Amino acid sequence: MSSISIIGLGGMGRAIAARAVGSGHTVEVVGRDAAKAKDLAAALGGGATAGTFGTAPAGDIVILAVPNAAAVPVVARYGNALAGKVIVDITNPMKADASGLTTSDGTSAAQEIATAAPASAHVVKAFNTVFGHVLTPGRRLDVLFAGDDAQAKASVSAFIESLGLRPLDAGGLDMAHWLEGTGLLMVSLARHSAGDFNFALGVSNFH
Amino acid sequence: MSSISIIGLGGMGRAIAARAVGSGHTVEVVGRDAAKAKDLAAALGGGATAGTFGTAPAGDIVILAVPNAAAVPVVARYGNALAGKVIVDITNPMKADASGLTTSDGTSAAQEIATAAPASAHVVKAFNTVFGHVLTPGRRLDVLFAGDDAQAKASVSAFIESLGLRPLDAGGLDMAHWLEGTGLLMVSLARHSAGDFNFALGVSNFH
Repeated sequence: MSSISIIGLGGMGRAIAARAVGSGHTVEVVGRDAAKAKDLAAALGGGATAGTFGTAPAGDIVILAVPNAAAVPVVARYGNALAGKVIVDITNPMKADASGLTTSDGTSAAQEIATAAPASAHVVKAFNTVFGHVLTPGRRLDVLFAGDDAQAKASVSAFIESLGLRPLDAGGLDMAHWLEGTGLLMVSLARHSAGDFNFALGVSNFH
Repeated sequence: MSSISIIGLGGMGRAIAARAVGSGHTVEVVGRDAAKAKDLAAALGGGATAGTFGTAPAGDIVILAVPNAAAVPVVARYGNALAGKVIVDITNPMKADASGLTTSDGTSAAQEIATAAPASAHVVKAFNTVFGHVLTPGRRLDVLFAGDDAQAKASVSAFIESLGLRPLDAGGLDMAHWLEGTGLLMVSLARHSAGDFNFALGVSNFH
């Protein structure tokens, strides 16, 4: 089992935390609001703890589950406290009206986070194509991920698998741009086709 | 049933043509190689005919199933012969090594085709996230589509549904950029995760 820190106390952070605790991982939750983090840790049970915002996370894998606009500032604030960590960027850099991304061609939130992070940290994009509220226990969803460091990717892939989810390697960190575009596409599908957000994107394999 | 013209005699054009004939549509296939088009029409059966390249297609829906690099030149060559048509762009504007798209931010193959087409034609992006060889009879796959004209979209959606496939409205033609990015993502998934191209992207709904 891995040691996981989750920075961010929103719906997606909670959903991943709940599944991680359920799978026997050592989970630390961290937020700017220490009392809220403590409450979440208590609610999670399973030995989950509340970490201190801005100090070195306990986990080897650090899931950055803050709103996209906060992601780079949070990483900058942590600075060298993230040295050597595997940083999982789950954010969607979406305009407020979901008309497009806030990033542009040839870059991505994940790559911006990698630039802001210590050189010894490795960023893996993952989970941004999964709506948090459909990540309920027992549901085996596909989790697309992308990154440049093979060991960091293997670690994140094993973590995803351990949650009862299916990891799908989408390639290098340059593919994060397209994973983020897929996040946008999913919101557009929700608006124009599904009528709600109760769906998941995935892959069917044929043999 | 609809009257459908398919310009392009490659794998994807053939796969759509076969399903369209199987669903009772009136199908015309068109290619630069008239003999090849005639052979395909005969192989398809079901009253399929071979049209003449560059002249007004018989179908109300015209599926542009040529390689992306040929799409705008073909539309330009047709000129006013495409007036009033619903043009379905299925192309993937991908670099030869699939490292990225040949289009850039804020545009897409579909939008470039719309610019090249007569003003009275309506372009709908569709099918580019489906590999032709998995589009085998009986398999109900998800077909994402996007476009700006509601009537053209409804027509394409009904056509997709009639093929035994599930249409998923991804929004306006500006979303074609992200559908094309999803096509790229699928190739990257094939290389890094699936190990082959025998898969389909789709959506699972929860209620």
